[in-house]
Amino acid sequence: MSLLPSLSLLPAALRLRKGDVTRAAILEAALHIARRDGLEGLTIGALADQLRMSKSGVFAHFGSRQDLQLAVLGEYARLFLADVLAPAVREPRGLPRLRALLENWLRVLGRELEEGCLMIAGASEYDDRAGSLHDAMVHIVTGWKNELLRAIEQARDEGHLASDLDAEQLVFEIYGLMLVAHHDARLLRSRDSLKRARAGLARLLDSFGTAAGKKSLQVARPPAAPKAQAQPRPGRAKGAAGARPLLLKKGRSPGRPKTDPPTSAKRVHLRPEGSRTRASGD
Amino acid sequence: MSLLPSLSLLPAALRLRKGDVTRAAILEAALHIARRDGLEGLTIGALADQLRMSKSGVFAHFGSRQDLQLAVLGEYARLFLADVLAPAVREPRGLPRLRALLENWLRVLGRELEEGCLMIAGASEYDDRAGSLHDAMVHIVTGWKNELLRAIEQARDEGHLASDLDAEQLVFEIYGLMLVAHHDARLLRSRDSLKRARAGLARLLDSFGTAAGKKSLQVARPPAAPKAQAQPRPGRAKGAAGARPLLLKKGRSPGRPKTDPPTSAKRVHLRPEGSRTRASGD
Repeated sequence: MSLLPSLSLLPAALRLRKGDVTRAAILEAALHIARRDGLEGLTIGALADQLRMSKSGVFAHFGSRQDLQLAVLGEYARLFLADVLAPAVREPRGLPRLRALLENWLRVLGRELEEGCLMIAGASEYDDRAGSLHDAMVHIVTGWKNELLRAIEQARDEGHLASDLDAEQLVFEIYGLMLVAHHDARLLRSRDSLKRARAGLARLLDSFGTAAGKKSLQVARPPAAPKAQAQPRPGRAKGAAGARPLLLKKGRSPGRPKTDPPTSAKRVHLRPEGSRTRASGD
Repeated sequence: MSLLPSLSLLPAALRLRKGDVTRAAILEAALHIARRDGLEGLTIGALADQLRMSKSGVFAHFGSRQDLQLAVLGEYARLFLADVLAPAVREPRGLPRLRALLENWLRVLGRELEEGCLMIAGASEYDDRAGSLHDAMVHIVTGWKNELLRAIEQARDEGHLASDLDAEQLVFEIYGLMLVAHHDARLLRSRDSLKRARAGLARLLDSFGTAAGKKSLQVARPPAAPKAQAQPRPGRAKGAAGARPLLLKKGRSPGRPKTDPPTSAKRVHLRPEGSRTRASGD
């Protein structure tokens, strides 16, 4: 990290915090390695090489490889929540917030498809190993599921989703769509997996949506329609009679262009056409 | 394998096939190790130890570790198709066959939750490695998706599923439910993940089902109801007005009883209550 050598130029007062800065730099580099090689591929040696530090220098900040791995997991979770949860909380409680949350999640997942999601890959790495890393994985996934559950229950309580909705079942099915999007994009090099996940999420929310839920989304709609084209949902849910389906927007696909033949697969958004605040950042 | 020593007692004519038998025994033991430790955890050394053979004896049948891994993958696929696809083909074409196929898949998945599914774990192992094993994984998963696609398209062509159904989207969502069932049961030790997957599958099929589809399932229904109890689906799909939902049967849970508190989580079946032919074998 180019940050490290320049620290010696700083006045003493500022250098008091050098330890914190170094730790953050180590953590950032470690997260980068773990995203690429998996948590099990993260070694102190490789990390020290990359940072041009000694191994003992790394150990001075993280007592052991496992402590480092745990810190990386924690950092991943912190960044994930900052990217996915924090902006969604600014949306109105209920369906608008839930949809923002899912849209943000898809955006982060889309960024991660190239290297793989640390948590999804980690689930396979640690699902049959006892220990602190397994426990930390479970803690993070369970915590995230609880955030989803809360957003769904709020949408139900606001009358935006059906009152007899099984919120845990909905969390389960949402998770399934994210997992298969990751699976197909990573293993099969599928270019339309994010689009299909969005279509599945839209159908799910639609099938449980109420008239008040549709209205809650339309409130945020500006008078002028944007240039993005609306398209009918694939995999339509029968029923939800009379309710207008969530529209999907086309956009650029973040998938890896690999073995699949070129298609017109586009990114689509959960937000209704012309929604005021679009998920940004990719 | 106790089979091996006894071979020397056989007459010469029968011993002509000793090579085949030995190869099959090696493959069976290798599959067992790969299920437990992953394909990357499968080594010639461990395999030879387990079989009380020399390494060179194993190499005589499989030229390299990679050849052995490829043979294990092929054997897994063969057994999977024999357990999942073959019995389903005996069901009437359309929704009955599709449901049998999904039920059989869930049953196999349920058996695999303890050690993990070789293909799902393998997707994480090989999704970012080029080579023969990656290609074999892709071949198997793609082939299986095509079988699902065909069963869905047949159900659509029979008029059992909606004519405007996006069959590939349905395959995608079905896969998601299987992946999350595996993920939650393995990482979170969730005991109700198979039940939730069944509920999700029932809701999916239900949301695309037609009157003819319901009828196709009722034809197979015997006059007397069995002892299994019906229960309402969690996560009901709104709409599909007037159509009777697929009923779920309670049964024994095959999940691992670990950290979860004891619950009344039961296995449920996609087949309608009283269906004539129940998926057997677990």
